[in-house]
Amino acid sequence: MDYVNLAEDTLRTFTVTTFQAIGVPEDDARQAADVLLKSDLRGIDSHGVARLSGYVRLWEKKRINPNPTVRIVHETHSTATVDGDSGLGLVVAPKAMKIAIEKAEAHGSGWVSVRNSNHFGIAAYHAMMALEKDMIGLSMTNASPLVSPTYSAERLLGTNPICYAFPAGKYPPVIVDMATAAAANGKLEIAQRTETGIPEGWIQNKYGHPSTDPTELRQGGALLPLGSYPTHGSHKGFCLSATVDILSSVLSGANYGPWVPPFVAFLEPPSDPVGLGIGHFLGAMRVDGFRPAQEFKQHMDNWVERFKRAKPIDESVPVIIPGEPEYAAEQDRTANGIPIIRAVYEDLKHLSRKFNIALD
Amino acid sequence: MDYVNLAEDTLRTFTVTTFQAIGVPEDDARQAADVLLKSDLRGIDSHGVARLSGYVRLWEKKRINPNPTVRIVHETHSTATVDGDSGLGLVVAPKAMKIAIEKAEAHGSGWVSVRNSNHFGIAAYHAMMALEKDMIGLSMTNASPLVSPTYSAERLLGTNPICYAFPAGKYPPVIVDMATAAAANGKLEIAQRTETGIPEGWIQNKYGHPSTDPTELRQGGALLPLGSYPTHGSHKGFCLSATVDILSSVLSGANYGPWVPPFVAFLEPPSDPVGLGIGHFLGAMRVDGFRPAQEFKQHMDNWVERFKRAKPIDESVPVIIPGEPEYAAEQDRTANGIPIIRAVYEDLKHLSRKFNIALD
Repeated sequence: MDYVNLAEDTLRTFTVTTFQAIGVPEDDARQAADVLLKSDLRGIDSHGVARLSGYVRLWEKKRINPNPTVRIVHETHSTATVDGDSGLGLVVAPKAMKIAIEKAEAHGSGWVSVRNSNHFGIAAYHAMMALEKDMIGLSMTNASPLVSPTYSAERLLGTNPICYAFPAGKYPPVIVDMATAAAANGKLEIAQRTETGIPEGWIQNKYGHPSTDPTELRQGGALLPLGSYPTHGSHKGFCLSATVDILSSVLSGANYGPWVPPFVAFLEPPSDPVGLGIGHFLGAMRVDGFRPAQEFKQHMDNWVERFKRAKPIDESVPVIIPGEPEYAAEQDRTANGIPIIRAVYEDLKHLSRKFNIALD
Repeated sequence: MDYVNLAEDTLRTFTVTTFQAIGVPEDDARQAADVLLKSDLRGIDSHGVARLSGYVRLWEKKRINPNPTVRIVHETHSTATVDGDSGLGLVVAPKAMKIAIEKAEAHGSGWVSVRNSNHFGIAAYHAMMALEKDMIGLSMTNASPLVSPTYSAERLLGTNPICYAFPAGKYPPVIVDMATAAAANGKLEIAQRTETGIPEGWIQNKYGHPSTDPTELRQGGALLPLGSYPTHGSHKGFCLSATVDILSSVLSGANYGPWVPPFVAFLEPPSDPVGLGIGHFLGAMRVDGFRPAQEFKQHMDNWVERFKRAKPIDESVPVIIPGEPEYAAEQDRTANGIPIIRAVYEDLKHLSRKFNIALD
């Protein structure tokens, strides 16, 4: 594919200024840009600046409030429900995660369910906020319905990601960051764009039959839950996705299941909502609420070392520690710039002209 | 298969008395039996009284302390590490879960990492303890290494189950209870016993190649993580299993990865332990730490109803709500007795003669 290489700073300044152009206050604009840039730096191109124009279109449809009042509506020492006031998830989720971290500082752990929010970018950003305090971080979110439950031909769940962030010692933190569908929607989008077939086990067609044609997803098909088929445990992927949906939205008072509003501006939200916006669930636990942080980190290092030297099936393909590829991408792209797909670059140039903001 | 039907009370009395025969105090024996009976009642035959003789053999090898002092070794308002003093997991885990629930009552949530424990039975038992207090329960445990990480030919992880229990209103609670491997080891054991082939995607042989021969598991093969193959997201199953391993054992100071002691008495634990016993992670969150419990339950009912009427692929196979089959089994077996496989019944008769305890 054709790429344009941009330095982190160039892209960051452009993104901050674009958010400010739609009325986001400067601090919030910096926060939102930081989430998107983190995604691009970590090599998760689908969730970075590629989505900037999408947020702008949602704002044009008045589905995003650029200057929300994010507030706690219910709380105990270690739990809270936060209302995001229809703000950008990129702003709401970090604010909610700060609340979780403050509760953890005071009481050992903090758990925040969020309603009335929007797409929050990569789950890892929020969970990783806990790391600098020697905490374990958790983040999850529900999302527009694209995935069918096992045995169903109907889309009722999002790709509903789960992320856990664990601090380590001399090794990078262990970051588990996974959609609960068999394949990420980003991979499907690439296959649809390039018109290439996909492996079986990723999607089903509108009748619920297995398909290797990515265009069937847009013709009433659905992504399959992690596990792909009942014989391979797809009900477990469904269960995980259900867990994310319940903790994020039934618990907070957001929309769940098929009522989750779509992320794309050209699709209207359901006319019979069961809650407010989309939901997230965020958590932080002090490591030293369980054992001294130094001890934990030494054992995390031992865990990482043991799994790194796991006997490989193929000597040239070693076991990958969760978060290792994203860490390597971040080192590389911080130093060498971020390769932006030509189509995304054109999208940014369009925003550049629209708001009269320089992109180089 | 050939079954013997036993009433719940008969089996319960026998199990309590057997635990007492190996020195378990009466209250603890009742608790341990309750965990095993719950498994048999819920139709999870592999984790009920079928394991009773296994616990006895571990006690004979002095690997289970029948009368442990379970104690908190580290805590904050909402977190704790509990040392199980080598006790039965069936006793240690409920005590640790009670601590989590007490912390949740006082501070909104409670999270307990457990070290120096043993096999804790079904994960659902412990998570479900939270339900009667209108709390959401979580339980997980690591286990003897049987599962290979993606790209490895080595067994480094257990089937490491995760369970979430969510209270509902007029419907039974939603219980997500899943091993993080593609197939449960119990299914493999049945296939090995009956010498029938298994679907691809469940195991690999000692070279890490796909296999449909269940006997290869005992010849150096391994269970595959949920997702089965890299193209189907098996790294996500690996990530989930790693999460369970870290929260249960790196956090508490128990053994993790390949150091987890085997559940079977004929295999010796590793001679170079990295911690104490096996580990669990248990949690409880007050629903009304987030929103009024009545509201939550109404929306849980709505969630259940919507998923129950999901459009099926095949009209005769409806979508299954997590926990529904186990709830149905519990209703049936409580009323009609528990069918015990002949081989398990012979095992119980053996214990009956050994300890001179009546089994009918």
